[in-house]
Amino acid sequence: MPKLDSVDLFYVSMPVVEDISDGSQDALLVRIAAGGKVGWGEAEASPLPSIASWIAPMSHGFCHPIASSVLGETIDSPADIARIGARVKRRSLDILQTDHTLSGIDEALWDLLGQLREEPVWRMLGYRKSWPKTPYASQLFGDTPEETRAKAARVAADGYLATKFGWGAFGLGAVKQDADHLMAARDGLGPEGILLVDAGCVFDDDVERAAKRLPALKAARATWYEEPLDRDALGEYKALSKRTPKVKLAGGEGAYTFLMAKQMMDLAGLSFIQIDAGRIGGITPAKAAADYAKARGVTFVNHTFTSHLQLSASLQPYAGLREHELCEYPVELKPVAKAITKTMLARDKNGQVAAPDAPGLGIDIDVDALRPYLIDVSIKVAGRSLYETPMLRR
Amino acid sequence: MPKLDSVDLFYVSMPVVEDISDGSQDALLVRIAAGGKVGWGEAEASPLPSIASWIAPMSHGFCHPIASSVLGETIDSPADIARIGARVKRRSLDILQTDHTLSGIDEALWDLLGQLREEPVWRMLGYRKSWPKTPYASQLFGDTPEETRAKAARVAADGYLATKFGWGAFGLGAVKQDADHLMAARDGLGPEGILLVDAGCVFDDDVERAAKRLPALKAARATWYEEPLDRDALGEYKALSKRTPKVKLAGGEGAYTFLMAKQMMDLAGLSFIQIDAGRIGGITPAKAAADYAKARGVTFVNHTFTSHLQLSASLQPYAGLREHELCEYPVELKPVAKAITKTMLARDKNGQVAAPDAPGLGIDIDVDALRPYLIDVSIKVAGRSLYETPMLRR
Repeated sequence: MPKLDSVDLFYVSMPVVEDISDGSQDALLVRIAAGGKVGWGEAEASPLPSIASWIAPMSHGFCHPIASSVLGETIDSPADIARIGARVKRRSLDILQTDHTLSGIDEALWDLLGQLREEPVWRMLGYRKSWPKTPYASQLFGDTPEETRAKAARVAADGYLATKFGWGAFGLGAVKQDADHLMAARDGLGPEGILLVDAGCVFDDDVERAAKRLPALKAARATWYEEPLDRDALGEYKALSKRTPKVKLAGGEGAYTFLMAKQMMDLAGLSFIQIDAGRIGGITPAKAAADYAKARGVTFVNHTFTSHLQLSASLQPYAGLREHELCEYPVELKPVAKAITKTMLARDKNGQVAAPDAPGLGIDIDVDALRPYLIDVSIKVAGRSLYETPMLRR
Repeated sequence: MPKLDSVDLFYVSMPVVEDISDGSQDALLVRIAAGGKVGWGEAEASPLPSIASWIAPMSHGFCHPIASSVLGETIDSPADIARIGARVKRRSLDILQTDHTLSGIDEALWDLLGQLREEPVWRMLGYRKSWPKTPYASQLFGDTPEETRAKAARVAADGYLATKFGWGAFGLGAVKQDADHLMAARDGLGPEGILLVDAGCVFDDDVERAAKRLPALKAARATWYEEPLDRDALGEYKALSKRTPKVKLAGGEGAYTFLMAKQMMDLAGLSFIQIDAGRIGGITPAKAAADYAKARGVTFVNHTFTSHLQLSASLQPYAGLREHELCEYPVELKPVAKAITKTMLARDKNGQVAAPDAPGLGIDIDVDALRPYLIDVSIKVAGRSLYETPMLRR
């Protein structure tokens, strides 16, 4: 049974990170080697606290460094990945950062197992086929309705059947202003395009303010209304969902455990559950969320705002669910996020994308392209070096 | 209006940390100075990831280093503390570790404001009096029922009116074995003592296994059944609460935002909400949780397993709620946790403890006693030193 030979964490970043909501400006990559093969994963978000949780000295019996639950373990089947994940979660229960860090480890373990078995991850998850998904292009609202219209028209011309507008000034000004942007987006997109709206948690726990935008969302025929409220406001989401039979709610990117995602489906009235494998603890809990969504009649969608390594990891959990066909597709990656992968998951002739039919995550990592973006990190505690950026190997 | 002159984070630890569930073996202390005064706070848990979140280079617009939202701010009233906290939360929304780190900062800001105004924190929170609370002594179940009986008898003899047993083998073996321990605890405690039981999340999301212990809990007249299930399993807690009209559920230590605590009260059927000011984001969200608990008829209790600095911080949010009278009281602190404070919140002649009637948190920090436990940390990123353990000053 192959023993994990090495587990390495790499922090890569643009030389200058801008103060904009673009999650592709840095990344934490995880490389795990065993049995002569290598697997890669990526963890959201903020690389340094995750590296710290990997090597943090023990605080007590439920605050072990994550590394101590992973190094020296063996991998032979999906059950081993579940076992390692459960061990990490139990032994690092009280470190808040744990699940973000675990995400990259779990992804790398699945990729590694796929390389060892020469099987795609989605097949090991029990799916027979990786169904093509309809990607939506995410963009910020324009500064004016006219600009929003032009942006919508541009992605429609580029062949996207679906687009998402979000953040910007949405929810911060008058209801009329938001309505103007929504109608402009519908206008630019054409009558057939799928329009999605992301409010970026702007209304906190204020159901009334969130509800004031419902008539405009309905008029613009928005398919979903994403994260109008704070991620923890489950009961408030439920109250809002009762006000909006015609406008469906979406959320879930903040879920960092399967059970959180489950509560969102059970208690918050969501119609779409958006899971980021790089945050929820990896592919293992994301697959549990996809199974539960299917059983409950909630539609599963990936959340991805970084590299195509993360895109593949986030597609795997629902690759075989044909009816769950939308897919968040990062379109304007920063150079560092592009540099991570030789493989890009391009749209096919129908404009769709799918999890690759290739071993593991099916993504070749471009170590040479990545090297210039590698950030040197050194962490010393009580005179001992606990982390030094490792050599970046294939 | 006083500007924050300095914000320093200190990692202190026992030289050897044991693999036991004792949270007093290390601490992250926060010292903030302004207007010639100093305030102190403490953040749970795992100091290194929290230090990393304080100085982590920006990943994107919602992943700023926490320091960038605090340094240079001004403090003149409670509204400034709320403003700084909201700024941290918004600008570091996507760093999972944020709320744990913020806890220590918020506590230090309240202590500082109290020093500047010469007022106890509980008075600034709107309370007229700090009511004495009945402390309960927390301990692990014994290895045998006989040992559990002896432990219960010992704390009763030591004058405690309430005791909590938890963890150990509870829930891992036969129902009969748990029942024997519970009856032994009741026996040792005597008929009048308040018996609390902490299952340490041992049943995950399995309502049936958790429910099998209800008859024994009822027979032993346990006042609460704490954390039988995973912290995220809100719907499962609700289902369990319906099975147990005679045994009330307690939980909440895992809540790291006010809205999480609110959902636990709204959706999980808890009768007791246990809030750790060092985890939920500080005294500000803990007070919001106390207000909500009072309005909803849920009983608020502090969760504290570290120093008396943290004990004072966790007492403040419900100091004025006379009917919410239980209090978790750390009895067997490790030397490092004792060294933090000159002031210890001792039990009065009635065996009760109260938040001090003194400026701020009313706790003197013992800088000289603490110095031997200070851990040297050095974090360098891309050739720049981002954190070096600062000098420990009064």
